[in-house]
Amino acid sequence: MDEMLHHKIKNRREGIKLALARRTPSILLKGGNVVNVFTGEIYKTNIAIYKDKIIGVGDEYLTARKVYKVEGSYILPGFIDAHIHLESSLLTPGEFAKALLLHGTTSVICDPHELANVFGLRGIKYVLEATEKLPVTLLTTVPSCVPATPYETTGSILSAREITTIFKWDRVIGLGEVMDTGGLLRGDAEVLSKIIIAEERGLSIDGHAPGLSGKILNAYIGSGIHTDHESTTKDEAMEKLRLGMYLMIREGSAAKNMQDLLSVIGPSTIDRCIFVSDDKYPDELLWKGHMDHILKKSVMLGLDPVSAIKAVTINPARAYKLSRIGAIAPGYMANIVLVKDLTNFEVVKVFYHGNLIVSDGKFLRPIAAYDRKGLYKTFNVRDFSLSRLKVFIKGNKVRVIEIIPGQIYTRHIIQKVLPDAQGEVLSDPRKDILKVAVIERHHGTGNMAVGFVKGFGLKKGALASSVAHDAHNIIVVGANDRDMYVAVQKIIELGGGQVICAGGEVIDYLSLPIGGLLSDQPLDKVVAREEALNRHARELGTILPAPFITLSFLSLAVIPELKITDKGLIDVDQFKIVGLEP
Amino acid sequence: MDEMLHHKIKNRREGIKLALARRTPSILLKGGNVVNVFTGEIYKTNIAIYKDKIIGVGDEYLTARKVYKVEGSYILPGFIDAHIHLESSLLTPGEFAKALLLHGTTSVICDPHELANVFGLRGIKYVLEATEKLPVTLLTTVPSCVPATPYETTGSILSAREITTIFKWDRVIGLGEVMDTGGLLRGDAEVLSKIIIAEERGLSIDGHAPGLSGKILNAYIGSGIHTDHESTTKDEAMEKLRLGMYLMIREGSAAKNMQDLLSVIGPSTIDRCIFVSDDKYPDELLWKGHMDHILKKSVMLGLDPVSAIKAVTINPARAYKLSRIGAIAPGYMANIVLVKDLTNFEVVKVFYHGNLIVSDGKFLRPIAAYDRKGLYKTFNVRDFSLSRLKVFIKGNKVRVIEIIPGQIYTRHIIQKVLPDAQGEVLSDPRKDILKVAVIERHHGTGNMAVGFVKGFGLKKGALASSVAHDAHNIIVVGANDRDMYVAVQKIIELGGGQVICAGGEVIDYLSLPIGGLLSDQPLDKVVAREEALNRHARELGTILPAPFITLSFLSLAVIPELKITDKGLIDVDQFKIVGLEP
Repeated sequence: MDEMLHHKIKNRREGIKLALARRTPSILLKGGNVVNVFTGEIYKTNIAIYKDKIIGVGDEYLTARKVYKVEGSYILPGFIDAHIHLESSLLTPGEFAKALLLHGTTSVICDPHELANVFGLRGIKYVLEATEKLPVTLLTTVPSCVPATPYETTGSILSAREITTIFKWDRVIGLGEVMDTGGLLRGDAEVLSKIIIAEERGLSIDGHAPGLSGKILNAYIGSGIHTDHESTTKDEAMEKLRLGMYLMIREGSAAKNMQDLLSVIGPSTIDRCIFVSDDKYPDELLWKGHMDHILKKSVMLGLDPVSAIKAVTINPARAYKLSRIGAIAPGYMANIVLVKDLTNFEVVKVFYHGNLIVSDGKFLRPIAAYDRKGLYKTFNVRDFSLSRLKVFIKGNKVRVIEIIPGQIYTRHIIQKVLPDAQGEVLSDPRKDILKVAVIERHHGTGNMAVGFVKGFGLKKGALASSVAHDAHNIIVVGANDRDMYVAVQKIIELGGGQVICAGGEVIDYLSLPIGGLLSDQPLDKVVAREEALNRHARELGTILPAPFITLSFLSLAVIPELKITDKGLIDVDQFKIVGLEP
Repeated sequence: MDEMLHHKIKNRREGIKLALARRTPSILLKGGNVVNVFTGEIYKTNIAIYKDKIIGVGDEYLTARKVYKVEGSYILPGFIDAHIHLESSLLTPGEFAKALLLHGTTSVICDPHELANVFGLRGIKYVLEATEKLPVTLLTTVPSCVPATPYETTGSILSAREITTIFKWDRVIGLGEVMDTGGLLRGDAEVLSKIIIAEERGLSIDGHAPGLSGKILNAYIGSGIHTDHESTTKDEAMEKLRLGMYLMIREGSAAKNMQDLLSVIGPSTIDRCIFVSDDKYPDELLWKGHMDHILKKSVMLGLDPVSAIKAVTINPARAYKLSRIGAIAPGYMANIVLVKDLTNFEVVKVFYHGNLIVSDGKFLRPIAAYDRKGLYKTFNVRDFSLSRLKVFIKGNKVRVIEIIPGQIYTRHIIQKVLPDAQGEVLSDPRKDILKVAVIERHHGTGNMAVGFVKGFGLKKGALASSVAHDAHNIIVVGANDRDMYVAVQKIIELGGGQVICAGGEVIDYLSLPIGGLLSDQPLDKVVAREEALNRHARELGTILPAPFITLSFLSLAVIPELKITDKGLIDVDQFKIVGLEP
């Protein structure tokens, strides 16, 4: 018998003795109201914990080395967020994990799509390594669409070959949301092989199927995809449930679908429903929380608390075949959250693997900060100059990206402009037709494109960012070329960030040195800087509530109708590069 | 790209085209009432099938090479029996599978515990090979307790080493019910290593926890076991559900627990409840059916039809992580049952992997009969003679196994007997104290034991059987030594069977040549012989409804209180061999 097996047997034997109350457990939670996700019951009982596991649940368990009297509290399994892009928090994986833990999330399935676009394989490894020793179970799916389109220059590419490599790593549990619906429906070999390879390894395969229905939805699901988090209407959600998808009801920072979808949840459907956040911006993480906020909101909207709790515990665990989390029962990992009530879900204590990590909103011990020394990135920008921001046209019309407030969808409009004698067109703040440019920053290709955007509202100055979906080149919008130029130069100097310029000077910035995507500062500092940046942006005239987020999506060439990448303007409906003049 | 992957991509691409209705599917089921196990809805729609899979569900699908108009029928996923010992059917695996298919069962998880006791590894391989080409998905768990006790001689032993080998085979999905609760609670290394090895391979681990509760149940579950099919009361069932077990509600031939447990099923618990049969005797398979009968009975007892259907389709699929069966949705295997209504669940048609196999109670094509040439077994009995059936005692009291009608539990009683001058005791039909003997038949050890049984009721003659749990040696009960001797000799001559003798002659028999456990005849013939045997047994005076079944359990040394094996009388409560005289 090998050493490892022998060790496991010893451990298991120990667990049995403890369950039989022949040994004293490490921890006893005494007299709390335990929420049982298997039976839907809530009852007062005791929970005995030894090392990382729950070893007994019942009134028979009375002592431990450390007894917590928790009468009055409600005891829930640690929360699970089954789908989130951690990069939207702007935090390092470690700071992100800490933010989640404070709110009772003990397991999270990340799709590190942005880091993968910048760093490829290394980006995913970084997320895993940075969180390896932390008191949270951070799992990842492997982004399936890097690059998202052929019409942009990413830092890296994840082909089926790289994905196969990553699948072998620990804590990698599936293929990330398959967004390339077009490729899939055409039967693209690369897309299908990613799915098939994931299946063969018994991994999960996440979907991304906004608005799909009928035959197309059948084809999409039948190709092997079994979750979706993009439903926005009840009908859409019900159709996806009927056809066998796990329904992820999204309530995050970028999209809030709970109110529209909540009535889908009923006794017959609850076990297929999961709450996810998809994206959480730093301010919402700080002020609103995470799955605790989702629980609170869903109950406020009328959902029964036990169904709500199932949707963030046992249901995601089951959907991803994670057999030892999501419930409070013998043999389960001792990931436990104590909340004050089932209305506000205010988190009182968080246990992870049998250790009390958070109490009354504070960490009991400092969390190892491995990732403060994270994955910094040297920007490689070539041939960028003030003059390359100039635009000359032959006619008097240009394509313009029109922003629709609150949406990442944009309109593709044609606007008359007034070129000067040489045919040069400038930003026109009075008409709110501003220049927007994307400058390639990964490989020094010298690629860049300049277009126009309506709806940003800047009266002067410029905003630039190295967060620009999905390739994360440098994007900049401005009322004049000079400020745009200065802002981009500052981004390059910072090695990534968000910058505001006016009058040829840098007004304010947030440094995002990790891949140009993440800050290396803690959450509260990041939020303070973000709020300052937004204030400054408003002072420059924009009416957008989150101008840097809107800016970052102007380059996302999978969302209609018109977008801009380092390769040019993209007509998403026709899925091709188009010229500035129509 | 390798050939296999390439082939799969082609296939998947084909499926997408079909789902998009750009190609014609093989089969369309048109206008039936589809039961959706994901949403609990029942609605009229169409199902398109291509090759072995469902490729589309919806009104959009209108044509196929073969269209079945099924208006009025209810369309259900093929049934799953998640726990059965196929040997109780006395049929070869192939005949067993056919019997199930007629009743809509398209997937079955067998625990070939009896064949394993006789043949070990080979017995399990036989079950798998015999069913490999059949239109049914027969999966197996690996019996965890062979032998069941050290107090009997089995044909084979399955140690952790053999089990590890078997785990690597196709269609082996878990560790069979862990019955050795004593060993487990003592932390026995062999028992624990079987569990740990199964876990490491991601396999399921079945339980067997009759009456366990409180700390012991916590210890049992925490050691890694997550299903149980032995609950007999609502309280027992609820406790198991609460502590995280999948609750298997058993309704088979040997035990019927549905009526007592049905009230456990409610909106909060349904997704953890599964109907299983555990054992189906040939007469019940023929006359009552299988999961169709369970559905009918549960609905008759008041369960809503959709919950009942979930408990034999998606729920067992989920519990065993079988991701492509148990529902009607794109990508799922086209295992489909048509029934007339949701009251009687009369099976009209059965599709397996897209082929119509059964229509109106008949197979459309003959099913390959590989296993007619099954695993025959040479009996190896030594030193058996008439005189070895003689019993001599010193005193005037003996231990007697008292049968309790309808139970496999027996009482351990002490009875006064009347030995002759030499101390010899004979069967005493007037007092219903009959001799019962077990003769080892696997290894020619010459082991045999003789004891006494009360409650069998034979006035004359003898009954012998090579089905004798769990070691399956030869067991014989009789009103006189001569008939017992003749009956045993006939069993040996047959190479296994059930035999009735009287007046020194064989009256009737059923040959069970495959391992001494299974017939090589079809179901109707087996039932006819069984019924004849029972009639003859009643003519000899027994009042037991199923005397051969009762006989077969008199050697099951894990069920209290007194049993007999080839090694002697077993006091099960004290778990040791005891002498005939108290």
